[in-house]
Parts: sequence; C-alpha cells; structure tokens
Amino acid sequence: MTDVDKIMQNALDAFQEYKSVSPAKKADFLNEIAAAIEAKREQLVPVAHEESNLPPARLNGELSRTINQLKMFARLVLEGSWVEAAIDTADKDRTPPKPDTRKMLLPVGPVVVFGASNFPFAFSTAGGDTASALASGSTVVIKGHSAHARTSELVYEAIYAAIKKAGMPEYTVQHVLGSGNTVGKALVQHPAAAGVGFTGSFAGGKALWDLANQRERPIPVFAEMSSINPVVFFPDTLQQNAATLAKTYAGSITLGVGQFCTNPGLLLAIKGEALDHFLALLGKEIEQVVPQKMLHSGIQQSYTKGLQQALVQKGIEKVGAAVAEAGEGEALPTVAKVAAKDFLKNPHLREEIFGPYSLAVVCDDKAVLAEVLSSLKGQLTTTVMATDKDIADHGDIIALQATLAGRIILNDVPTGVEVCASMVHGGPYPSTTDGRYTSVGTTAIKRWVRPVCFQNFKDSMLPEQLKNSNPPDIWRIVNNEWTKNAIV
Amino acid sequence: MTDVDKIMQNALDAFQEYKSVSPAKKADFLNEIAAAIEAKREQLVPVAHEESNLPPARLNGELSRTINQLKMFARLVLEGSWVEAAIDTADKDRTPPKPDTRKMLLPVGPVVVFGASNFPFAFSTAGGDTASALASGSTVVIKGHSAHARTSELVYEAIYAAIKKAGMPEYTVQHVLGSGNTVGKALVQHPAAAGVGFTGSFAGGKALWDLANQRERPIPVFAEMSSINPVVFFPDTLQQNAATLAKTYAGSITLGVGQFCTNPGLLLAIKGEALDHFLALLGKEIEQVVPQKMLHSGIQQSYTKGLQQALVQKGIEKVGAAVAEAGEGEALPTVAKVAAKDFLKNPHLREEIFGPYSLAVVCDDKAVLAEVLSSLKGQLTTTVMATDKDIADHGDIIALQATLAGRIILNDVPTGVEVCASMVHGGPYPSTTDGRYTSVGTTAIKRWVRPVCFQNFKDSMLPEQLKNSNPPDIWRIVNNEWTKNAIV
Repeated sequence: MTDVDKIMQNALDAFQEYKSVSPAKKADFLNEIAAAIEAKREQLVPVAHEESNLPPARLNGELSRTINQLKMFARLVLEGSWVEAAIDTADKDRTPPKPDTRKMLLPVGPVVVFGASNFPFAFSTAGGDTASALASGSTVVIKGHSAHARTSELVYEAIYAAIKKAGMPEYTVQHVLGSGNTVGKALVQHPAAAGVGFTGSFAGGKALWDLANQRERPIPVFAEMSSINPVVFFPDTLQQNAATLAKTYAGSITLGVGQFCTNPGLLLAIKGEALDHFLALLGKEIEQVVPQKMLHSGIQQSYTKGLQQALVQKGIEKVGAAVAEAGEGEALPTVAKVAAKDFLKNPHLREEIFGPYSLAVVCDDKAVLAEVLSSLKGQLTTTVMATDKDIADHGDIIALQATLAGRIILNDVPTGVEVCASMVHGGPYPSTTDGRYTSVGTTAIKRWVRPVCFQNFKDSMLPEQLKNSNPPDIWRIVNNEWTKNAIV
Repeated sequence: MTDVDKIMQNALDAFQEYKSVSPAKKADFLNEIAAAIEAKREQLVPVAHEESNLPPARLNGELSRTINQLKMFARLVLEGSWVEAAIDTADKDRTPPKPDTRKMLLPVGPVVVFGASNFPFAFSTAGGDTASALASGSTVVIKGHSAHARTSELVYEAIYAAIKKAGMPEYTVQHVLGSGNTVGKALVQHPAAAGVGFTGSFAGGKALWDLANQRERPIPVFAEMSSINPVVFFPDTLQQNAATLAKTYAGSITLGVGQFCTNPGLLLAIKGEALDHFLALLGKEIEQVVPQKMLHSGIQQSYTKGLQQALVQKGIEKVGAAVAEAGEGEALPTVAKVAAKDFLKNPHLREEIFGPYSLAVVCDDKAVLAEVLSSLKGQLTTTVMATDKDIADHGDIIALQATLAGRIILNDVPTGVEVCASMVHGGPYPSTTDGRYTSVGTTAIKRWVRPVCFQNFKDSMLPEQLKNSNPPDIWRIVNNEWTKNAIV
C-alpha cells in the first residue's frame, strides 16, 4: 500500500463518518478552522510573504477573506436550505398510484484539492475548495502548492487543531506535499477520489481533467484555468472619463503584480481620438508603476518569456511599460496595442500572459468589435465601461459580452471577487472545465454533491431535511410550492 | 457547408432569439407542443406500435407522460424560480466597498438530443431532454432514433406546428435522421453544439462523451447509460411475503419486455430457506410469462446472446424461464442465480443484459451482502424490500445502498419513474456520465444552464428576474434570505 493509497483510504473511511455529522457540528467545525487560522495570523502572514513575495497587507486581506469564507459556509450549512430538498407526496387515488418521492443533495465523497500559487490562503489549503467540500459533507485531501509549502503546512496545522477541537474524524482533512506530476496525479487517479478542485494554469487543469476522465470511474474536476477577461471601453466613456479610466485600469492591470485569474488582459475599443488619448494616459500610468516580485521564479520566467513573444507579434505596438527596471524575479508592467485585423489573425494573442500585461485591441467599428468578442474563448469575466449613452447605443455588444463569461461587470474592474451567494467565479471553457459551476460563493458547494431521491421511505428512515416535520426548518419545494411548512 | 453545418448554424441563430423569449411565451410554446402531440395521438400510437413492437396501451401511457412532462416544464418556466436568482446588494460603507452582484441561470446554447429506442415518446423527439432544453431557453437539434424514424418524424411535425403557432424562431427545434456514427457524431463535434442529451447503451453514451471531451471546447454530455438496479430482499420480508414479492418482481422484471433502464437486473439476499422458497416462487411466476417481441432485432439479438453467455458463467443456475417458446424477435424471460463468491469473482455478471433477465445473488451472510453491494458500479436505482424488523436490523446495508444510486426505493419496484420535482433519474458513473444531474423531473433543466453574475448593473439593464421590483414574482436569495419581496 503506497502513501497515496493510505491517504485516500483514510479519506474514504473518514467520509463514512463525516458525511453523517450534523449540520450544526459541521458549522462548528468550519468556524473552528476559521478561528484556528485567525489565531495563527501573525505566524502565517510573514511565512506566506517570504514564500510568495506578496505584500503583508495583501496577505492579511486574503487571510481575512479566507476566514470569512469558512464562516460563510458555516452559516450556509447551519441554515441548511442549500440541499435543495424537494418533496412530492403520495397520491394513492391516482391511476397509477403516485409514490412519495423526496430528493436532496448529498456529498459525493473524498475531494482532492490543489493549492493555487497565486492565493496562498484563499484558493489553497483552507480556501474555497476545501471550505465548500467540507460544508458539503465530503472529506478533503489537500495537495499543497510547493511554492508556499510552509504556509500550507501551517494552515493545515490549524485545520488539524480544529478537527481535534470539534471532534471530527481524524482524517476529515489530510495534507500532502510533493510533485503535481506524481503525487497529484496519483491522488486524482485513486479509485477513492470522488472530485477534484484546482485553480491554476490551463496546462495543469487540463491534465488533471484528462486524468479524471480516463479513470475507470470518471470523476468531476472543477479546474479554474485561463482567462484574459476582456474589458470593452465604449466611445462616450472614453471621451468623458479617459483620465479616471487610465488610472483605474493601470491599477487593476498591475494589482498583485497582475497575478489574478481576473486580471484584465484584453482592452477593447473602437478607434478614434478618444481611444488614442486614453491609451496615451494609460501608458503614462503604467510607466509609473514600480515593478514588483512575482510569486516565484517559474512564474516570473513565464511572464518575461510570454511578454517578449507577445511584443514581437505582427502589428503589436507598445503603449507603455514601467520606466523603472525590473529587478531579479520582478515583472515589468506593460501595455501594448494591436489593430483588430492583426488580432483576429493571430490566435496567440488570445492566450493568457499571467502577470501585469494587457493588450489593447483597436477596432475599426462596432462590427469589428463584435467580431473580436466573438473570436474569444470562454472567460471568467468581461467588463463594460460605459456611460448611459454608451449603454443605450451598444446593448447588442453588452448582450454579446454576457455570453462569453461567468461574470459581467459594469463600470468597475474585474479584479476583486466578492465572496457571496450571487458570485460566479467560473465561466465557459477554457476559463474552467465546466461553466455550470463556480469556485467562489455559496454555490461552490454544488460541485461536490449529487441528488438522491428516496422513494416510499418511512419518515423515520429519511434524512432530517426530508422528514415531514422539517426539523431543520429549511426551505423545501413541497408539491411544487416553496415552503418551510411541515407536511401534515 | 454540410447539412450538419447548416443545421447547427440555424440552431445557433435561433438560439440568439429564442433565449430571450419571455417565460410566458416559452410556457405557451411547450403547452402548444403538448397539445399538438395530443392531437396526433391516434396517428402516433399505431405507428409507434408498428415500429417498436410496444403494446398500444403502454404507448398511450407513454404519450400521456410525454405530454404531462411538457406541461410540467411549462409550469416550471411560468413559475420562474428555477433560475436560482441570488442577489447581494451593494454596501458602499464597507472597506473595501461591496459591489452589487446578481446571479441567475442562463441557457448554454444549442443542445443535441438523441432519441432512445426504448421510449419512442418520453425519451425521444419531444421527450424529457427536448422539453428541459426548450424550457431552459436552449434550442434543440434532435437526432431521431432509426428504430422509430416515422414516429420521430410525426412527433417533429407536431413540434414544428407548435413552433409556427407559438411564433417561435423557425429553427428552435430541428430534426435529423441518420446514423449515430456519422450524423450523430458530426452534430456533437460541431462547434455550435453546447450540450448533449442521450439515453441508451453504455457504448453509445461513452462514445458521445469521449467525442464531446475531445472537442476544442468540450461540452457537457448527459448520457444515461447502464444500470442493473440492485434489489435487496431482506430476510424477514422473504419470510413474510414471498408469494407477493415473487409476483410483484416477476412483473417488474418482465415489464415492457424488460426494456427499461430501471429494470431490476440484480436480486440480492442472504441464503436460507426463505430465499429458496422465494426463488422457487419467482421461477414459477417467470415460467408463466408470455414471451413478447423486443423493440427491434438488434436488441433482441443482443439479449439472446447476453443471456446465453450469462447462463454458462461459472456457478450460474437457472431459477426459471418462460415455458412458452420465444418466437421470432421475442425475448425469453429468465431468472438465474449465483453464489456471491462466484459473482464477486466475475465482473461480467455485473454488466447489464438489456431485457427480461435478472440474476439473484445468494449471499452467505450480511457481510457478504455488503461486499457484493460494494462491488457494484454506480446505479440509477437500488431497492430495499424490507419489513420494519428488517429495517431495524439492516440500517447499515440500507445506508450503503443509498451511496450506490440516484434513487433508493423502499418496498416498491424500480420500474416506473415519476415525473416530478423530487425525481432523480441519474446516478453515479456508469449509470450516467455525471451523477450530479437527472434526466427526469424539473431539475433536468439544470443540465442546460450556467450561472451568470451581473455586477454593478443598472436595474434597467438587468434581466427581469434580477430587477429590484422582482417583476416575475419569483423566489430569490436576497442578502442570504429566501424571499419574493422586492428590493426597496
């Protein structure tokens, strides 16, 4: 029996117990993890800073977000209606007689979670994948990211302390480090694995998805992979607000050294003086940005190489780059532009360059703008920068944008993903492997559950959520009506 | 441009219009299809009978079910809460300011639906896949099953009449006949396809799923494929109710010539006199069943071959078979038995034999019964035949059963799938390609939609379902509370 065998068997054994833990106790457990992480804040932030080069202020914010995310899932579990209970009572007088059927969502089993290099807290060891899987009743095996291995271990210590304090099964959450190509692969291929959560590169996510599909029993992989997050700057707002837009977007493009899945990598607009003026201002803003260290040398080398390749493509023209030189491990913030006709001919320009880089595509007219948008692959986000006049004039373009992405934003930046019930951090392929899910927000739990229907069951045998008296007081669909009422 | 290109382009063009059709008009359209099919009943049933060999009474029932299914989706669309609207309002005073985010489910695009040979109405041209896709706002391309091509064309005529009557886009639903290996493949591979619905064999479903995953942009396939629907007969009920059980299950095993996805193909029990007695009675019941024609010669040949192979496996013993000889195209109802130790060693015995055949597995004790259950792949259904005493004694086995299938049934037969909100006609792989979905019931619509979040949108720009005033009066999650109230 290999280590991976032992780990996955432990996860499966723990699942048999953990899946039946009451919502109240699961909520306590999630809150205990949150508290244990908070208690380690002063230890965690410096280590994460050392490992990721991310500034302490950002890491403190990310840690708070991670803690709030755990608490959000605790509230979701405690409230309980997320199980989508639906009940159709029997009708013996019908021909043929109608049986009593009752449905709810139940956890699938052990979930393998891969830590993400760009979010050592919020998308890693105790991040959204782990929190949502634990909330669902699934156990978790975390493959910590090697770029922040010590941070991952420290966070896991907090989780383990919470397991003990809350009296959960020993192996409810397990933590493993090692190569994605060996350990990660073995975890995903293991028969006991029932789901996979991943945030990272397209190559990494696609490889895991292929592995999962090649299993004897394929399992769902939610991989959040690649997105260039197109932003459309409409003519009137460029005319009215060029300086503000330039400042705001220079900030968004370079926020966190551009290392966000929602980084605005593509800026679209119709040609004209207003656009020229905006790009000139944006170039000036970018020039002032101070280069900063990226997460690790691999990412920095990829960025530098990707940037060099991008800038020599046909028709590419530099709009602006940081004037300060990029030191070792640092990324040079850069914005370039290209005519739509060259963009449309060159699929390489549609690929993500992970870092503080953005490409402006200059479109001849609205039809070309629509053509450029239609040429794009699935995205996590797309943004509409527009005045009321723009909105009135360009409803068709905005409608087209909504088909591209999981989230469409008006007059704001795509960076910054609110953790809440209405968030969608997902989108059509290849931004994720399955656009029907999200990795952020309460509905992230839906990735790790499946519906089970109990037919003709006695009340005493049913899960609490499906009993006549509705003990957890949840919203249910009873005979096609939404209600919290008991069935009498 | 090939025919498939034209069809899929038409489906995509129609989608641009159809997706914005109001819920009320979509509901009208679904009801018009139902009415148009009802109006053709006397024409449809004889043709379907001729093509499928299914008896008119069964076909009449199936047609009614198909009509009711369309009406159910019309009601779902009209009620409107299925879009899972969630709203989190802005909080400008928070640090950082919280944006307004609003989420709902939107249709993915053209869905390719494959007709199923065993349900010429309910799982074919205007069946559950088509009805749920149309309800979602997706357009549909139907690949009619060649075994009931004329029935499929007639049903499509009814759909087309409804398109005209309801004023829907010409290509909202299209119908194509031809080989699954050529036309079907080309439809699934076409870039405009956004989803696939299939009910049929494992080989067929798996092939489509592989094709869809190999696309440049993979798309979700919901294939309902293969299930042997294990039924556990517990000791006390065997003791108390042997004669009734034998009669009931002889009926379920041979219903519709055993050509149901939910046919009980595996009967599990602990050895003993009660089991011997039950099997003797079941054998006698099976002997009396009159062989009937199967759907088509291909299925009949598969059944006969599968049965012959099954009966020569090590340890297999015949319990009973119809005494009347099977005529041309007919299936011979048969029940066999095998000791658990032989069953566990022989994976072939876990494969579905589509037709009126069932295998009883004789288990030495409860532990062996658990071992046999654990050896099974994912199932659509599993059934518990038990008295109160059995339930009290065997809670662990029943809990194990619930992990196997999408639906667990107490003291009833698995054949017969109620069309309602709480139904799950789905289950872990390989019963379907994705156990998180169902192909029957209102939630079948979830296969064809994805969530989209609108951030910071003006009220006037939002879909009706997300506007402050809640014009469609649907249930929404507003700031984490379920409510129909407007936002003021």
